[in-house]
Amino acid sequence: MNNMSAEIILIGNELLIGKVKDTNGSYLIDELLKYGIKINRMTIIPDDIEVIAEEIKSAIDRKPLLIFTSGGLGPTYDDMTLEGIAKALGVELNLNNEALEQVKERYRKLKQIGRVKTEDLTESKLKMAKIPINSIPLKNNAGAAPGILININHDKGLTKLISMPGFPDELKSIFNDHVVPILKQLHANYYHAGLKFLNVGESDIAPDLIELRARYPQIWIKTHPVKDNTSIIKNEIHLTMFLVDVEESNKSKLINDIIELRETLKNRIEKLGGEVIEIY
Amino acid sequence: MNNMSAEIILIGNELLIGKVKDTNGSYLIDELLKYGIKINRMTIIPDDIEVIAEEIKSAIDRKPLLIFTSGGLGPTYDDMTLEGIAKALGVELNLNNEALEQVKERYRKLKQIGRVKTEDLTESKLKMAKIPINSIPLKNNAGAAPGILININHDKGLTKLISMPGFPDELKSIFNDHVVPILKQLHANYYHAGLKFLNVGESDIAPDLIELRARYPQIWIKTHPVKDNTSIIKNEIHLTMFLVDVEESNKSKLINDIIELRETLKNRIEKLGGEVIEIY
Repeated sequence: MNNMSAEIILIGNELLIGKVKDTNGSYLIDELLKYGIKINRMTIIPDDIEVIAEEIKSAIDRKPLLIFTSGGLGPTYDDMTLEGIAKALGVELNLNNEALEQVKERYRKLKQIGRVKTEDLTESKLKMAKIPINSIPLKNNAGAAPGILININHDKGLTKLISMPGFPDELKSIFNDHVVPILKQLHANYYHAGLKFLNVGESDIAPDLIELRARYPQIWIKTHPVKDNTSIIKNEIHLTMFLVDVEESNKSKLINDIIELRETLKNRIEKLGGEVIEIY
Repeated sequence: MNNMSAEIILIGNELLIGKVKDTNGSYLIDELLKYGIKINRMTIIPDDIEVIAEEIKSAIDRKPLLIFTSGGLGPTYDDMTLEGIAKALGVELNLNNEALEQVKERYRKLKQIGRVKTEDLTESKLKMAKIPINSIPLKNNAGAAPGILININHDKGLTKLISMPGFPDELKSIFNDHVVPILKQLHANYYHAGLKFLNVGESDIAPDLIELRARYPQIWIKTHPVKDNTSIIKNEIHLTMFLVDVEESNKSKLINDIIELRETLKNRIEKLGGEVIEIY
């Protein structure tokens, strides 16, 4: 079983002062789950070269399959992501011809529709085409700054570092155009199931969970007490499982396991005097 | 100037599968800013002892004034925050009498209103009162699990590690009762100002920002292009400044700086043919 995991790094002071509420992180989580990718960590860090470089280095050291960054690819001095990545990898930034063509094309278009006054290549515009050596520019069909992809080989295989702009529409555009095709080839799956119940408390069911966890090690069993203003105890147990490169026959056995565990939990809860009110 | 900074660690698999959308992180950011605390990093990690321990260790190594954790203090096996903290600090978990009294009192109350069937102290309930040696329990007036506070001394002064439950009402209760009194004593301030304008692009104003950034090093200048479906270029520049232990006379000079910089930006934008439409 390969390590089909991802880490997400959101870069931008505006996120750390509540000026902009993150939506990219939750978008990426939802999308990655669809393709069976387990998200191991999400971090929000400021626009600071040293911090970005350290964070990228730590993420690479953990050797996930995918590292995503969002933000900091624009034309202003506070956009430092590419410089941070270059520092983390110990490589130089280099004007990339393909990236430059993409930036030029964008400004030609923006000039045509009147959103910029000139298509001249200023220093600030060129900055967006200066990408770390060995990175592949990812065309941005919703904005000027290209994303980048870097393949990093290590003893456990390969880590793909993918940087996307912070604008949600640009991030989504690059994700759909360039990341989804990669994800589709991974053949990973995510399954979940669960049940909601009344009158059995989290601490009442806790001993059972310890035992069941040992019996179904591949399933993550998580309780979610639901709080409301009534005196009714309402709880939820949510079961999740990630499967990678599993043969079809084995897959159905593992999916059966999650259904079987849910049934076992239902019986235990009813034995404890609880009432199951929802199964999914 | 002390290091009036904070890091936030949100612990919970449910956040990494999008099952629960984080609200604690944005609550803490908003509250900490009110007291002039700069948030340097926010991380979401799973319920995994090793990952929690590593993350706490890294945060302590960076020596911020405050480290907050949210989540993982409950009675079930998947609540591992205290064990992770103990591991990070190289200390044992110990049944704390004060914490135990708090848990007991809570279950007495829950029994009275019928939300639990027994106030007997099961292993799962005792777990919430087993806290790392040298930590101070923080009474939770909205739930069973106490928070904890640990003072960590180092060469740069003191780091306060504060762990709170993941339920938003319990986190808020502990934050208000135990954290706000600490923050009030810090005498730190956060100021921000800004302006919105039309017809000048981010890449047009970029060279000016490099120059102004050098002139006002204590002010963070951040551009936010506003995207809409019209062909009008709309941008925002947001100025932020954190002040700590600054004398009143110096404070007003620094506040003047932020106003002066906003005025300078307004003039530059108008010179470039832009129209300022909002000042705050």
